[in-house]
Amino acid sequence: MLDVALLGTGGMMPLPDRFLTSLLLRLKGHMLLIDCGEGTQITLKQMGWGFKNIDVICFTHYHADHISGLPGLLLTIGNSDRREPVVLMGPHGLKRVYEGLKTICPELPFEVIINEIDPWENMEVGVFNISACKLEHKITCLGYRIDVKRIGKFNVEKAKALNIPIKLWSLLQKRESVEFEGNIYTSDMVLGDERKGIRVSYITDSRPVSAIPGFIKGSDLFICEGMYGEEEKLQKAKEYKHMLYSEAGRLAAEGCVKEMWLTHFSPSMPFPEEYIRNARKYFSNTYVGKDRKNVTLLFEDDING
Amino acid sequence: MLDVALLGTGGMMPLPDRFLTSLLLRLKGHMLLIDCGEGTQITLKQMGWGFKNIDVICFTHYHADHISGLPGLLLTIGNSDRREPVVLMGPHGLKRVYEGLKTICPELPFEVIINEIDPWENMEVGVFNISACKLEHKITCLGYRIDVKRIGKFNVEKAKALNIPIKLWSLLQKRESVEFEGNIYTSDMVLGDERKGIRVSYITDSRPVSAIPGFIKGSDLFICEGMYGEEEKLQKAKEYKHMLYSEAGRLAAEGCVKEMWLTHFSPSMPFPEEYIRNARKYFSNTYVGKDRKNVTLLFEDDING
Repeated sequence: MLDVALLGTGGMMPLPDRFLTSLLLRLKGHMLLIDCGEGTQITLKQMGWGFKNIDVICFTHYHADHISGLPGLLLTIGNSDRREPVVLMGPHGLKRVYEGLKTICPELPFEVIINEIDPWENMEVGVFNISACKLEHKITCLGYRIDVKRIGKFNVEKAKALNIPIKLWSLLQKRESVEFEGNIYTSDMVLGDERKGIRVSYITDSRPVSAIPGFIKGSDLFICEGMYGEEEKLQKAKEYKHMLYSEAGRLAAEGCVKEMWLTHFSPSMPFPEEYIRNARKYFSNTYVGKDRKNVTLLFEDDING
Repeated sequence: MLDVALLGTGGMMPLPDRFLTSLLLRLKGHMLLIDCGEGTQITLKQMGWGFKNIDVICFTHYHADHISGLPGLLLTIGNSDRREPVVLMGPHGLKRVYEGLKTICPELPFEVIINEIDPWENMEVGVFNISACKLEHKITCLGYRIDVKRIGKFNVEKAKALNIPIKLWSLLQKRESVEFEGNIYTSDMVLGDERKGIRVSYITDSRPVSAIPGFIKGSDLFICEGMYGEEEKLQKAKEYKHMLYSEAGRLAAEGCVKEMWLTHFSPSMPFPEEYIRNARKYFSNTYVGKDRKNVTLLFEDDING
């Protein structure tokens, strides 16, 4: 299972009741954060999931509203006694940006690993499987997809039929191979086909480019920017390289996702729920994001028994 | 009159109900900010005094909790249509720190003027008279004092006796000299002695060094750090170069100030008011600062009529 929390849902500037857009994921006690604007550590504190286990921070791009909270967060992670490295990941330029911000957090009690990535890369960082997608914003910007793989079901009948000693079962279940009393046992002997995992995708800040539906395909949860709810702001959306609700709705439908949460609302839109019909027209399972809105996503076969 | 507002009262890290220590002053529609940690723009928004008229931002020092909100604030000031320069002022190193932070706010629609200052300097920046004092912290740190001067009272009897035309009075009242029909009139002909102005002083982060009482002397409002309320934290205060409430109280008493507000509370102290007696023992007119606590300070002769 994967815990998902929106830490903030605002674009451009943090507001008293709407912090800057950021997403927190928790898997097996490890946390991954996407974007870290000014104030992100405040809602992190409110969530109560702690700071110490943040292993990875991904950045979509380096506009201040997506990264200005980084120095403070790193210091707070340090004060939470973390000593293991923290991975920062984002488009090219991250080294330069981090060097700049480091002037106000020069001494941290852990190593910071900078990972500048290219679009379409896929990588495993700790427990997380991360993919990136090229978006269209004023500057280079990446979308992210996190996949939690789900191995095949352990076939007890098969294991018994093959006379595999019970004490080896848990190792085989972890996809390990074992040699025991001259015999070699491999996990494919007892594991069924890989089962459906969990997929969360995160797209902001961007125009609705054609690569997105394929990238987010089948997501259990698709988190997408909805900078403007009003249809008549299309020209503005094009100019500032953002999306309308309706454009997000179309992407969700084309991507055959299960559920969409809108986020990254313009400060000019005090009631984001007012325009939700504009997204639901294309994708009915749309919800307006709120700060600290969260869900625990389960594996399909855990839900269906 | 001078409006004074504490924007935040926390030290080290912003908390959901206690933002980072920062002070806002407003004089004749112009604003001066001291320190700008992560989230300062959020309480600024809550105050409702606007962003456009922030002329000066002073920094005590460059630990992240005092400056990490700068890039976001500058962008928001830009979005509020300011086109006039903004002055940044602080101890040496400001240029280097600003260059670093500028990586995430490279384009602003106004000029940023960097003013690295020495302790004991006194300068006029716009409507503000600013003095700085050397403190004792882990890195170079300055205290600030803002003085609002109050010119002498216009003496109507004298002006009449000297036959000064009434239409010249307002110019003389502004300390200007006027030539009219061959005569030169100077303001000292009609203005009394300079009257008591308004003084606000701001001391954080520091040990209680001996220069402070003289520097804050007679302040109408003395805002002072109270990192630790508990007397038994003296060793910690010495180690981290901060103050106890009792030390702040002694400074206020020695400086003969009128009123003291404590601020910059340790995150380990959830109820700062719990220890107020430790400061009041030395200075009874002590109050615990709260986010957005504010007051309008009047000139003495406006109060007394």
